[in-house]
Amino acid sequence: MAKNEQFVSQIADIETDFPQWYTDVVLKTKLVDYGPVKGTMVIRPYGYAIWENIQRELDARFKAAGVENAYFPLLIPMSFMTKEAEHVEGFAPEVAVVTHAGGAKLEEPLVVRPTSETIIGHMMGKWVESWRDLPLRMNQWCNVMRWEKTTRPFLRTSEFLWQEGHSVYTSGEEAETETLNMLRLYEEFAKNVLCMPVLTGRKTEKEKFAGAVATYGMEAMMHDGKSLQSGTTHYMGQNFAKAFNVRFTDKDGTLKYGYTMSYGVSTRLIGAIIMTHGDQRGLVLPPPVSPVQAVIVPIAQKKEGVLEACNALLERLKRAGVRVTLDDSDNSPGWKFNEWEMKGVPLRIELGPRDIEGGVMTVFRRDTCEKDVSSLSDAENAVTELLRAVSENLYARAEKRMRERIVPAETLGQLLDGVNGGNFVRAGWCGCRACEDAVKETAQATARVMAEENTAKTCVVCGKPSVHTVFFARAY
Amino acid sequence: MAKNEQFVSQIADIETDFPQWYTDVVLKTKLVDYGPVKGTMVIRPYGYAIWENIQRELDARFKAAGVENAYFPLLIPMSFMTKEAEHVEGFAPEVAVVTHAGGAKLEEPLVVRPTSETIIGHMMGKWVESWRDLPLRMNQWCNVMRWEKTTRPFLRTSEFLWQEGHSVYTSGEEAETETLNMLRLYEEFAKNVLCMPVLTGRKTEKEKFAGAVATYGMEAMMHDGKSLQSGTTHYMGQNFAKAFNVRFTDKDGTLKYGYTMSYGVSTRLIGAIIMTHGDQRGLVLPPPVSPVQAVIVPIAQKKEGVLEACNALLERLKRAGVRVTLDDSDNSPGWKFNEWEMKGVPLRIELGPRDIEGGVMTVFRRDTCEKDVSSLSDAENAVTELLRAVSENLYARAEKRMRERIVPAETLGQLLDGVNGGNFVRAGWCGCRACEDAVKETAQATARVMAEENTAKTCVVCGKPSVHTVFFARAY
Repeated sequence: MAKNEQFVSQIADIETDFPQWYTDVVLKTKLVDYGPVKGTMVIRPYGYAIWENIQRELDARFKAAGVENAYFPLLIPMSFMTKEAEHVEGFAPEVAVVTHAGGAKLEEPLVVRPTSETIIGHMMGKWVESWRDLPLRMNQWCNVMRWEKTTRPFLRTSEFLWQEGHSVYTSGEEAETETLNMLRLYEEFAKNVLCMPVLTGRKTEKEKFAGAVATYGMEAMMHDGKSLQSGTTHYMGQNFAKAFNVRFTDKDGTLKYGYTMSYGVSTRLIGAIIMTHGDQRGLVLPPPVSPVQAVIVPIAQKKEGVLEACNALLERLKRAGVRVTLDDSDNSPGWKFNEWEMKGVPLRIELGPRDIEGGVMTVFRRDTCEKDVSSLSDAENAVTELLRAVSENLYARAEKRMRERIVPAETLGQLLDGVNGGNFVRAGWCGCRACEDAVKETAQATARVMAEENTAKTCVVCGKPSVHTVFFARAY
Repeated sequence: MAKNEQFVSQIADIETDFPQWYTDVVLKTKLVDYGPVKGTMVIRPYGYAIWENIQRELDARFKAAGVENAYFPLLIPMSFMTKEAEHVEGFAPEVAVVTHAGGAKLEEPLVVRPTSETIIGHMMGKWVESWRDLPLRMNQWCNVMRWEKTTRPFLRTSEFLWQEGHSVYTSGEEAETETLNMLRLYEEFAKNVLCMPVLTGRKTEKEKFAGAVATYGMEAMMHDGKSLQSGTTHYMGQNFAKAFNVRFTDKDGTLKYGYTMSYGVSTRLIGAIIMTHGDQRGLVLPPPVSPVQAVIVPIAQKKEGVLEACNALLERLKRAGVRVTLDDSDNSPGWKFNEWEMKGVPLRIELGPRDIEGGVMTVFRRDTCEKDVSSLSDAENAVTELLRAVSENLYARAEKRMRERIVPAETLGQLLDGVNGGNFVRAGWCGCRACEDAVKETAQATARVMAEENTAKTCVVCGKPSVHTVFFARAY
C-alpha cells in the first residue's frame, strides 16, 4: 500500500472541523501535495486533470468570444511595477524578486509576475498604433507568484496557475462592456461546468484590484458559509494605458490613449469545487470536470464472464464519450467503493454475475449516495442521462443552500449573528471606508460584492442612508 | 497600417543572409516579439497558436502512452541543485535566482527551474514506497529559465515553454526502454505533425545532459545545413534516485533505488519548423500545426454574390474540420496573396465571379507555389486531400535534402569541407574527448548523434580505429 492510502477513511468531521476536512481530502485523494518551498504546492495528476478540464472548457469559451492566446515573459523589470502608483502599492509587498542570473548580479532586479498588466501594457504600447489595431484581446495561461504568509493548497499558495485576459479598446464604454461580458462568461461557466452558483457584482474601493477603476467579482458560498472569491474582472480606464503609453491614432487623426481591462480565474477554482460540493465521504466532483465520470466496479470479478462484461461496457461507454475507468485491482469491492467515493467520481457502476444474468447494472450516484438498477442494453443513454442529472442536482442543491443562507441585517449585531451562523449577510452601507472597516473589525467579514440595486434603507454600521446594498461575508 | 506591417515584402535573402531572413520572418509574421528583459520573448497569438497545436498533438500521444500530467513548483531550493554533482555543474552557471520575496531576504536562495529533475526527484522520493507504485510516469507543460548570453527567438531565449516528462521504474532495463520509446514517439511526431525528418541517436559524453547516464537526441537539418537539436530523452540510471532517495520495497521485501528517465521538447520546435520549411516568401507551415490551414481570398469581392459564395464555402470547410478563414478586408487581392504567403498558410482558395459561374475554385499551394482549379461541389474532399498532399510533400522534400546533404569524411579536411558546404558529415571517431574537441576547434562542428552501428574504419581526427560513427554538424 502506498503512502497516503493507508488511512483513507480517516477524514476529519466536515461540520465541526472543516479546515482539517479540507486538508485531509485534498491530500488523501492525491489532488495535491506540499512543495519543498514553504507555501508552494504540487498539483498531482488527479488534481491537474481537473484543471485540464477547466482549461478546455474556459478556453473554448474565450476562443468563441474571439480572444486569442499568447505568452508573455515571467520576469518583469522592477521599474514597470512602479509606473502605476496603486498597482505597485498593492503588489510590491508580495512579489518574489530575481536579483542574480547567469552567475552575476543583475543591473535591475526582476519581479516574478504576480499578474501581467504591466508587461502586457508595455507590449501593447509597442504594438498598438491605429484604431484599426483595436480592440486587441489576448489571454494567457500561465503561472504567477504572490508571496503569501498563510497558505492552503489551491486557495492561497505562493505560486498558482491561472489565465489572465487583457484587452485594449478605443473607448471606455467598450472596455467596461467587456468587463461585464467576461463576468457573465465566468458566471455561465461556474454554473454549467462547475455546477456552482455564484454572486456577482462590483467590488468596493477597498476590495478592488490595485490599479483598477472598477473590479467585479464572482463569489461562491462554501460548505461552511464562508465566501470564496472565484474570479474577477477589472476595468482599468486609462490608468495602465497612460502608464505604458498605449496610444492609437483615431479616425479623426488625433492620438489617444486606449482603455484597458483584464480578467482572471485560477487553480483556486479547484478549491471552490471541493468546498462547494464535498461531503463527509470526501470529494463530490461535478461531471463536466471530473477526471473520471464513471467507474466500473466488478462484483465477484473472478467469476467467469464478469470481467469480460465489464470490459465490454467500458468500451461502449468510452465510445459514447464518457470518461470511464474499470477498477479490476485486487482490492475488495467495499474498499473500491470507499476509494472512489472519496475521490468524488459521479457514478459507480457495479456489475456482478446476477446483474449480467439479468441484463442490468447497478448505478450508485455520488451526489445522492443512492443506488438504482438500469438496463445494460441502454447503458450509454442511462449513464449520459445520469451524469446530466448529477450536474443539475449539484447546482440546484448548492443554489438552494446559498439562497437560504443569504440573510438580511439592519444592525452590526444582526450582521455578526448572520456570519456567525454561516451566512452571507445582505445589508445597507453608506459607502464610507470607516463603516466598511467597522464591519471587518466587529464581524471579521468583508464586503464581497455590491448588489446591482440599492434596496436597503440605512447603513448597517452608522445608520445613515444606504448608498449600496452589500453582501458581507467571511471569506477565504 | 499597424507597426510591423509596413514592409512586409522586405525579407532578407534566405540564401545569403539566413540569420536575418529568420529574424525578418519571425517578426514580420508576428509570431514573436522581443520582451523588455534582454533575452526574453513574447509569443504572439500567431506563434502561440502553433504551440497550442503542437501541445494538442503531443499531449494526446503522451496520454495514449499512459503518461499523466502534473504541475511542480517553479522555484527550487538551491540546495537541491547541488545534490547531483554533474547536474549542478551543468546548470548552476545559467540559473536565475530569487533572493528576496514578500519584502524580505530569503533564508535560502531559490532557483527558477532550468529543468525539474531535482524537484520532481524530491517528490518522487516522498511518493514512492512500494514496487506497486511503479512505474510512475508524469509530464508537465511549463516555463523554464536558462540565462543565455546569445539569444534568438524560439531557438535560445532565457525563458521558454516546454514539456518535461519524468518517469521512475523498478529496473534500469525498463527505464532505458522508455528512454528509447519516447525518442521514437518524438520522431513519429516530428514526421507526421511537423513534416520534419530527423536524425536520432545517442549523444556523446560531452554532449549529454548534466546528470544523465545516456542522452538521446533528435536533430533536424535546417535550410542552411546547420543542425537544430529538437528533442532529447535521458536515461538517468540511479543518479537522481540516489540523490533524492527515491526508494521502493521490492517484491522480495528489500529496499531498492529506482531508475529514472526524462524527456523534453520546447517552443524551439517552432524555430525548427520555420528553418526547415521556410522559403524566400516567408513561412511555409505544416498543415497539422498551421493556425490557419486554408484562407479564402475573394476576387472582385464587391461584385454581387462573391462574398456570399465565399462565406458559404467557409462554413462548409469549417464543418469539414478545416481551420479556415476568410480574408474580406479592404486590402487588394495581391496584397492579401503576399500577406498569407508570408504567413505560410498551406492553401489559398481564390474565388471570383468567373470561378463561381464555372462552379470551381482556384487553389494555390504554398509548398509548391502552384495554382490549380478544382470543383467547388467537392471542395471538402479536395481541400482535405490537398492538405495531406502538402504535408507529404513538405516531408519528402526535407527528407530528400537531408539525405543528399549527409556526406562522409575520412579526414578533418574533408569534414571541414563538408560542413562548409552546408552538410552533416558522417565520420568515424575513436571515442576520445580530444578528437571531439579537435573537430569543434577546426570545423566549429559538434557531434550531433552517434549512428546505431559503427560503419567507419578510422577516427576522422587521429586515424585510430573508429569506435562510433558520428554525425557531425554545425548547430544552433
